[in-house]
Amino acid sequence: MSDHETPMVNGVVEHKIGEEVLPFVEDEYGGVIVEMTTPTDPKCFVATLRYSFTQWRSQGKKGVWLNLPLSQVNLVEPAVKEGFRYHHAEPTYLMLVYWIPESESTIPLNASHRVRVGAVVLNHNKEILVVQEKYGMLRGSGVWKIPTGVVDEGEDIFAAAIREVKEETGIDTEFLEVLAFCQTHESFFVKSDLFFICLLRPTSFDIQKQDLEIEAAQWMPFEDSASQPITHKNELFKVIHRICSLKMEKNYTGFSKKPTTTFFDDKLGYLYLNKQDMNNPIT
Amino acid sequence: MSDHETPMVNGVVEHKIGEEVLPFVEDEYGGVIVEMTTPTDPKCFVATLRYSFTQWRSQGKKGVWLNLPLSQVNLVEPAVKEGFRYHHAEPTYLMLVYWIPESESTIPLNASHRVRVGAVVLNHNKEILVVQEKYGMLRGSGVWKIPTGVVDEGEDIFAAAIREVKEETGIDTEFLEVLAFCQTHESFFVKSDLFFICLLRPTSFDIQKQDLEIEAAQWMPFEDSASQPITHKNELFKVIHRICSLKMEKNYTGFSKKPTTTFFDDKLGYLYLNKQDMNNPIT
Repeated sequence: MSDHETPMVNGVVEHKIGEEVLPFVEDEYGGVIVEMTTPTDPKCFVATLRYSFTQWRSQGKKGVWLNLPLSQVNLVEPAVKEGFRYHHAEPTYLMLVYWIPESESTIPLNASHRVRVGAVVLNHNKEILVVQEKYGMLRGSGVWKIPTGVVDEGEDIFAAAIREVKEETGIDTEFLEVLAFCQTHESFFVKSDLFFICLLRPTSFDIQKQDLEIEAAQWMPFEDSASQPITHKNELFKVIHRICSLKMEKNYTGFSKKPTTTFFDDKLGYLYLNKQDMNNPIT
Repeated sequence: MSDHETPMVNGVVEHKIGEEVLPFVEDEYGGVIVEMTTPTDPKCFVATLRYSFTQWRSQGKKGVWLNLPLSQVNLVEPAVKEGFRYHHAEPTYLMLVYWIPESESTIPLNASHRVRVGAVVLNHNKEILVVQEKYGMLRGSGVWKIPTGVVDEGEDIFAAAIREVKEETGIDTEFLEVLAFCQTHESFFVKSDLFFICLLRPTSFDIQKQDLEIEAAQWMPFEDSASQPITHKNELFKVIHRICSLKMEKNYTGFSKKPTTTFFDDKLGYLYLNKQDMNNPIT
């Protein structure tokens, strides 16, 4: 765009509609990311979008990401009519995407998994912390189960296990190990589910049950929990109790946590691994 | 609604706008799920939606899920203006949600994690299968890394590891163990990342590299891979090589896979656990 096409009005650059490229940043994969942060007339938006595409095509751009905050909901319909498809959404924004090349799209898929934790909390009396829930599949069944819950976005698995136990039962705990995990599909709409079974050590013992979702909570003799009919019928209940039995005899090693940095960006994360084997190699 | 308000026209029940409840199914948590499958005029939609809410409120309903397929994109703006918020989106639909009660929302969060796999493939010559990528953070760096990739929706972790190795290098493999996993946050927009490091056994050995994303692939002496400068600088590279060293001496146990059914719905899934300890308790 040459200078004479960008007249200054009160110090603000005023672009002619249709000769302006939407503000964007480049991603690392030859694509562009557009975030529409200011209120925009749908007709202006479409004209500017079309002009932007002529530029991006000639520059060999690949994926075009379009972030529309909730306040720019008026641009969703025009964007879809221009060929954008939904990629993902959060409460406050919708992300759409358009793949320019003829070749197959390498746009990464949306987040695919919900992550849940189950917390095995054993005390020194060989009792396990169990609850009965007010909602969900097991309500009214009389089944006592370990506290479970969904890991929040941005929350560490070990922290979620500690939080869920505290919320549901009032018990304070320390994280010890991930004993096992389970992956299933189509668990939550089309999403898959990763369920991490965590072993925690209690540091308090008086139960204060939460009323919203929990019907009852107790320290239950481990043998009573293991002998519930569901433990024999349900493979996952059975495995959890089997691992607990081994664990009480110190004959099972799960994955402990270790702070680490990631491959690429030195971002802090947690690695879960068999620390016992890492620290005490047999040779 | 009384009979005289539902006149029959050509055998089809014709509801007066604003006296009809949107078609819905109930969920297990006191909420309703509405899927708008037929083209609808936005004004009719709003009138019907408002009437539906009067009914749902009086019935004590909690969460209202609204599924708008891409073809019903014209209802997105009216739904948001009526107070709906985005919950999640897939390429072909947008899911919105509205929480009716005064109490805090217990609407489950959207899928929060992207899941990736890294594949450690060792052959009998103490060589490790490594690649250089055309895109991403390490492009042009000369770093040799294990094949990695994103787990597709509905795909098992072990299957994703086998698929990625085959796609990137042409090598056939069998899954052995998850050696460790790593959780980081804000890895993909606001989403968290779970990265599973899998050990695979090669069953073929001739490399056929994929051209789209892979610059080069080779069987590299394990010691050469371990002595790359990045292995000393990057914690995750270091841990992977340390575990591999232990593994080659059979001094590390990861999690093997075991088919299982889930807690609630007898859905088939895979459990990953320390099978060695499960099968060979010391006592």
